[in-house]
Amino acid sequence: MLQAVAPFEQHIEAMRYSLFAGGKRVRPILCLATGEAVAKSSDTEKNLLPIACALECIHTYSLVHDDLPAMDDDDLRRGKPTNHTLFGEAGAILAGDGLLTWAFDLLSSPDAGTLTPLERLKIIHIIARAAGPQGMVGGQALDIACENTSFPFETLQTIHKNKTGVLITCSVHAGAIGAGASPEQTEKLIAYGNNIGLAFQIVDDLLNATSTTEQLGKAAGSDASRGKATYPAFFGIEKTRIKAQEAVKRAIDALSEFSENADPLRAIAEYIYTRSH
Amino acid sequence: MLQAVAPFEQHIEAMRYSLFAGGKRVRPILCLATGEAVAKSSDTEKNLLPIACALECIHTYSLVHDDLPAMDDDDLRRGKPTNHTLFGEAGAILAGDGLLTWAFDLLSSPDAGTLTPLERLKIIHIIARAAGPQGMVGGQALDIACENTSFPFETLQTIHKNKTGVLITCSVHAGAIGAGASPEQTEKLIAYGNNIGLAFQIVDDLLNATSTTEQLGKAAGSDASRGKATYPAFFGIEKTRIKAQEAVKRAIDALSEFSENADPLRAIAEYIYTRSH
Repeated sequence: MLQAVAPFEQHIEAMRYSLFAGGKRVRPILCLATGEAVAKSSDTEKNLLPIACALECIHTYSLVHDDLPAMDDDDLRRGKPTNHTLFGEAGAILAGDGLLTWAFDLLSSPDAGTLTPLERLKIIHIIARAAGPQGMVGGQALDIACENTSFPFETLQTIHKNKTGVLITCSVHAGAIGAGASPEQTEKLIAYGNNIGLAFQIVDDLLNATSTTEQLGKAAGSDASRGKATYPAFFGIEKTRIKAQEAVKRAIDALSEFSENADPLRAIAEYIYTRSH
Repeated sequence: MLQAVAPFEQHIEAMRYSLFAGGKRVRPILCLATGEAVAKSSDTEKNLLPIACALECIHTYSLVHDDLPAMDDDDLRRGKPTNHTLFGEAGAILAGDGLLTWAFDLLSSPDAGTLTPLERLKIIHIIARAAGPQGMVGGQALDIACENTSFPFETLQTIHKNKTGVLITCSVHAGAIGAGASPEQTEKLIAYGNNIGLAFQIVDDLLNATSTTEQLGKAAGSDASRGKATYPAFFGIEKTRIKAQEAVKRAIDALSEFSENADPLRAIAEYIYTRSH
């Protein structure tokens, strides 16, 4: 699909570089595992695959832009040089733009399975809302605006929720709709998504504060040096760990009425707490 | 719709600043005028309005990113300070990201008229394809990659077509689908769009070479000083003017079977040739 074809080789190469730089694929896996938990049709995996890919494109674009000199100015991501160190700032800005737009190309592609156009439209809207100015981009803008200022814990929660949480919840939500989940199932899956989204960001803060750059594959300790507010800065390391554990427990509790088909989702919740990078 | 609400006031203000900075609105007007030319339903204008707005959001995002220091490094746009001079580089990158994502939010919004979900999905796909790595973003990346290099005329055509032409053609194409045009009508409207897209970019080149900064509202002569290839650089001013006229004529000829309802489209083609900024 995303092949480097003339005359756009260099641009598509820049997009592919970050897309295939060895991410954890948390969002696409969540989307597919949600489909497995609901498991209403043999078409589910095929139907969810373009959605899963689109979510990873959006996540990757956000990393490429976050790493830019004008933003977090990071040289290292996933243990490799960041996009702009290889393709230049202009190349990285455009690679991000290309990935974001490509996500909506995938989501609206004519050959994308057996979902109804209405279901697909709903999924596009959920994803656009989660990724947009009232979601992920808005959260990133707020994060940048708050650097080196002091602000209440509620603002940290807002930044976390929007910068990271909404796209994680949305990965589950889109998977639920794409798998034909009932409204009750969808509600429980969203509660799961909200809690693992929270746990994910708390653990990100913890890892940034307690790991080495080598372990993380990106600059460790950078939050503190940039004057970013984090969970450990508000609560200390130990209380932060407990808060992450509590969120994981709430996530798993939300799945109590699902069968063993939801075990991958349960395992992801555990993984989010125990991951080392 | 795009109101500056807490906690994202600053981000949404940055988006609104460029969106409401007094653009010519060529793309949304083209979309709506195409609807008028086809005129099959009283719902057409209402159905096309969110599409027209989305096209302007995408065009505006591309300008905000093009003006960045890492790209064209322009301080002035439409006679006003560019986005990043007011909101900072990070703010401008995110404002562009927000506008691009918001476009797809508008296109997939649940309360968007009487088009079928399938028609709306088609329109989203046309727009994503036109704006994406094989269209507008790809064209911009190629333009940047070719700065200060010498390349054949065919490459200039590719840059022009993708950087500007595809989104203009797409504005007409999306309008045609949204208005229920027949395949034959759509084909003719696309031919019209291709030719005014070409004329638009040729005239842009001409204006950059022959106008003052005050007339343009953005830096004049900047193409030559940045070593960009342009129509005037290949053909000289006079032959370039003739090429623009020829493209406008082809555009108007493509509409020969349309009634006077297509007069706005004909007038836009003339305007594109005679505009002064």
